Amino acid sequence: MTARLLSFIAGGKPGYGLARDGGIVDLSARHGSEWPDLRAVIEAGAVDRLVAAGEALSPDMAEADVGFDIPVPNAEKIICVGVNYPDRNGEYKDGQEAPPNPSLFPRFARSFVGHQVPLTRPKASEQLDYEGEVVIVIGKAGRHIPEAHALSHIAGLSLCNEGTLRDWVRHAKFNVTQGKNFDGSGAIGPWFVPFTGEDQIADIELTTRVNGELRQSDRTSRMIFPFAKLIAYISTFTTLVPGDMIVTGTPTGAGARLDPPVWLKPGDMVEVAATGLGTLVNGVRDEGEGGAA
Amino acid sequence: MTARLLSFIAGGKPGYGLARDGGIVDLSARHGSEWPDLRAVIEAGAVDRLVAAGEALSPDMAEADVGFDIPVPNAEKIICVGVNYPDRNGEYKDGQEAPPNPSLFPRFARSFVGHQVPLTRPKASEQLDYEGEVVIVIGKAGRHIPEAHALSHIAGLSLCNEGTLRDWVRHAKFNVTQGKNFDGSGAIGPWFVPFTGEDQIADIELTTRVNGELRQSDRTSRMIFPFAKLIAYISTFTTLVPGDMIVTGTPTGAGARLDPPVWLKPGDMVEVAATGLGTLVNGVRDEGEGGAA
Repeated sequence: MTARLLSFIAGGKPGYGLARDGGIVDLSARHGSEWPDLRAVIEAGAVDRLVAAGEALSPDMAEADVGFDIPVPNAEKIICVGVNYPDRNGEYKDGQEAPPNPSLFPRFARSFVGHQVPLTRPKASEQLDYEGEVVIVIGKAGRHIPEAHALSHIAGLSLCNEGTLRDWVRHAKFNVTQGKNFDGSGAIGPWFVPFTGEDQIADIELTTRVNGELRQSDRTSRMIFPFAKLIAYISTFTTLVPGDMIVTGTPTGAGARLDPPVWLKPGDMVEVAATGLGTLVNGVRDEGEGGAA
Repeated sequence: MTARLLSFIAGGKPGYGLARDGGIVDLSARHGSEWPDLRAVIEAGAVDRLVAAGEALSPDMAEADVGFDIPVPNAEKIICVGVNYPDRNGEYKDGQEAPPNPSLFPRFARSFVGHQVPLTRPKASEQLDYEGEVVIVIGKAGRHIPEAHALSHIAGLSLCNEGTLRDWVRHAKFNVTQGKNFDGSGAIGPWFVPFTGEDQIADIELTTRVNGELRQSDRTSRMIFPFAKLIAYISTFTTLVPGDMIVTGTPTGAGARLDPPVWLKPGDMVEVAATGLGTLVNGVRDEGEGGAA
């Protein structure tokens, strides 16, 4: 596995560090005045320097001593892709052809928790569903980025459980906003893995397991809109900036597609795993019971 | 007119102040160390104190000496309402009943400019359209806010020209994200008007003029989902925090509904005006020509 940088909460305070086999090197304690958070590290183009600094040090604390935050807690924007693996379009059974352009929707940071923090099943709905996805973190700002140069704008990668309240994605006439933005209903993490080149992302195997049972499995080589295409397309309308996260879509096999549908409930354990990126693990709790929010 | 607080750029630096008849009182110069921006003022519940401080002082500069920014440039979130005035649902001609819940979509702050800054008609589309709207700025954080208490969560009001690229709102299978988030395609302002009570918002007359010609005209008393309902509904899924802006929907009469449709072009001037809130004025420029972005 390549380097793993994480954002965390320790002793009630936010920090960032390098995850090593024996624990976490606290880099914010050493570099926080220069770079207050991982977004600042990415903006400064200092990811490699920071990793090198961390690898020369021994861990300061055990992984169990920190709470994982999402890798870039203060991203300017988080943009999610709606339908991006084969057969997902077919799952909608609306007779429409594969779409010419990716469906996109923003999620607010507060709709996500970090690794090992339970997802929240809200009071308003029992239809909490998982969606395992690969996340791109932008490193270099750009608008109208040509597809041929798009990968050079990636700083790193992460994983997402793009938790969704199914009955609330069509609560109104248009847009999935509500069902995709319940506080703490999804997760991003465990960490930020620096981007090393096209080989790293060309054929990532992505799986989602619920209570150990395989529910989703696909490979990024089969994406309808590959990473470079997504970056180019999104930058036609908005300027991408360092720390922005693009959540790149989920394979078939979410709970809503089972017959009958199966929703997440307290006691369940969801694991989103991918080649080289580790495993994002989250339990489930009811709103108002345990956890932070 | 009640008090008017604004965020501005002067000498290349962001600031905030009080707009008076003779010019602008620079409040950030005096209170910036305590409250770095208007969002911090709102969070601290210090709006009234700040207004009182500003009213005791003489203007420091002319309005023409500053560039207007959107009232809360660093809001955590900006949530827009899709269909909220009578006949707007009918404009879609899809035979559907009036919706049970408001359609919602987020916009990124960078999709908006301030008062008197030209809107950008992007390279990607000629279908730039106006939408005049009233904006609520949240003052007090809350989740599951009861409708009966919702108005007490409002800190102030503003106006929006929720500029939209019509062909890009249905560019993909789902969601209006793209057409609503082109950099600099809309505007919020001119200022933040402190909320004084239900009377202030019960029957606001909202108009939009293009080159002096009246195109939209309606009253907030006719909203399908009134302000209190919007706050209650949105807070079922996300925690509203100080500085959050809710853009509450536009009346009939956007350029897309004219036959044939009429789009905005360089040289046009759009004025969104409302009782007690002033007039938000924006020209139009082509991407890459003049202006900041």
